This record gives sequence, C-alpha cells and structure tokens, in this order.
Amino acid sequence: MTDRTFRRTVDAFRWEGVDVLAYKQDGAAPFKDVTRQVLFDDPSLAAQLRYFEVAPGGWTTLERHEHVHNVMVIRGRGRCLVGDEAWDLAPNDLVSVPPLTWHQFLAAPDEPLGFLCLVNRERDRPQLPAAGEVDRLAKPLSK
Amino acid sequence: MTDRTFRRTVDAFRWEGVDVLAYKQDGAAPFKDVTRQVLFDDPSLAAQLRYFEVAPGGWTTLERHEHVHNVMVIRGRGRCLVGDEAWDLAPNDLVSVPPLTWHQFLAAPDEPLGFLCLVNRERDRPQLPAAGEVDRLAKPLSK
Repeated sequence: MTDRTFRRTVDAFRWEGVDVLAYKQDGAAPFKDVTRQVLFDDPSLAAQLRYFEVAPGGWTTLERHEHVHNVMVIRGRGRCLVGDEAWDLAPNDLVSVPPLTWHQFLAAPDEPLGFLCLVNRERDRPQLPAAGEVDRLAKPLSK
Repeated sequence: MTDRTFRRTVDAFRWEGVDVLAYKQDGAAPFKDVTRQVLFDDPSLAAQLRYFEVAPGGWTTLERHEHVHNVMVIRGRGRCLVGDEAWDLAPNDLVSVPPLTWHQFLAAPDEPLGFLCLVNRERDRPQLPAAGEVDRLAKPLSK
C-alpha cells in the first residue's frame, strides 16, 4: 500500500502530493490565469483526470483537437464555448466537447472556475485558430 | 451539436439525461442503499466516469478486481476500506484502489456519501470474499 492510496486536500482544491502546474507548456497559446493539477494518472488506466482552475476573469485557450474532453464543473462560476453555442457554468454541470470542436472556458469576473477534465492518455495536440478567426469563433460567448 | 454537449443537474447530484441505475446487476453481491449514474460514457474515451451515491448508513459491496478504481468524493461523509487500511472521507478526497485490493465504501450514519469513480471501459468482473473472510477483511473499518 503506497501513501498515494489516499490523498486529502491540503487547501481548497489543492491536493497533497499533486503539483500545481502551468496550464500550457507551449508559450504560444493565449490564455490567462489557469492552473492544472493531474489528480489521477494511473499507468494502468487509459485516461487521466485533471483539475483546471481559471482565476476570476481568466480564460483557457480557444482550441480544438481530435480527442474529446469530458468536463465536470466543481468550483465557482463561468461560461464555456463549445462549437457554435455557449453556456453559463455552475458546479456539477457536465460538458462534452466533441472531436475537432472549438472550445474555451472562462471564469466569472468575480469567481474562479474549477473543473475536472477527463481525457484519453494518448491524444493529439491542440490546434489554434488563425488570428483573424478568433473573434468569429468566440462570438457565441458574447450573446 | 447534440443536446448532450451540456448537461445541468436537475436536482442535487441528479443530471439531466442520466439514468439513476441500480448499483449491481448481480443480486448476489451484498450492499445497501447505493445508486449509480454514468456521467461520461463516450465511445471514443477508453474510460468511464460514474457517480455513486451511498445513502446514510449504507455501504458498497466488499470486493476486489484486477482493474483499478480512481475515486473522488464530491458529497457528504463516510469511510472507506482499501486493503488493510481505512480512512474517513470528505469532499475532494482522492482514493486509488490498486489491482486485486479489497475495498468498500460506507456512508456516515447521518449523511450520504457521493463519489466519482473512474474506470477503464474494458475491465474484469469483481470478486467477492468467502463468507467466512468478510469480518477479517473489514476489520480496519472498525478501528
């Protein structure tokens, strides 16, 4: 039995033995105030469960990829774009991002947005929109 | 875009479009007051995310299997057995159940215990202890 069998939070939404990571390794992707924690990364599991937290007023990168994202909100408030629709988000909401669908998560101005994201361990790299496309793609968020 | 992209809760810890299922199909396994909801079951994902809820005073089956369980508590209080150790559980606690390790989840007498459980889509069936072994295996829970 290793000490990784049980892990308590050491602070709100920070877990013992789990590093708080930079959201992107790739500095080219535009985002603001996002952290990433890998909660489960068992080599015998074909998927990983990560916890992302977007600080108040922050956002994740607008991107798409072949692999699906399965998301569960567990903290705060915000809004998400998936394809040509946008939704307000609250704890326990579930979001499925289909393959090659543009998506982005935003925290409310005055609250963080924390969510679990389930992905396959083996997955393709995100694609970014062309600079001139961002406003059109993000338009549903402003409705 | 299907209407499954976004799913809100319709009640506390009940999601729209998600059936509340019997915990076991197999009537032989001993358990008490447990429901199961499959939150994510995307065919392109190699894993499933389920939500189990144990009513106050209830418990899951004492069992083991080759596949690992990755568990995150999201509601209430309780206690779990993993191998020869037991832990008190509260929201956001993480539990990893290694292969072939006996485990059981119990709700507090006066509170439900709700947890997410991540498993591989392809997995082996649980094994049950021999009747005479249950008391010895469950002993850490009484400490």
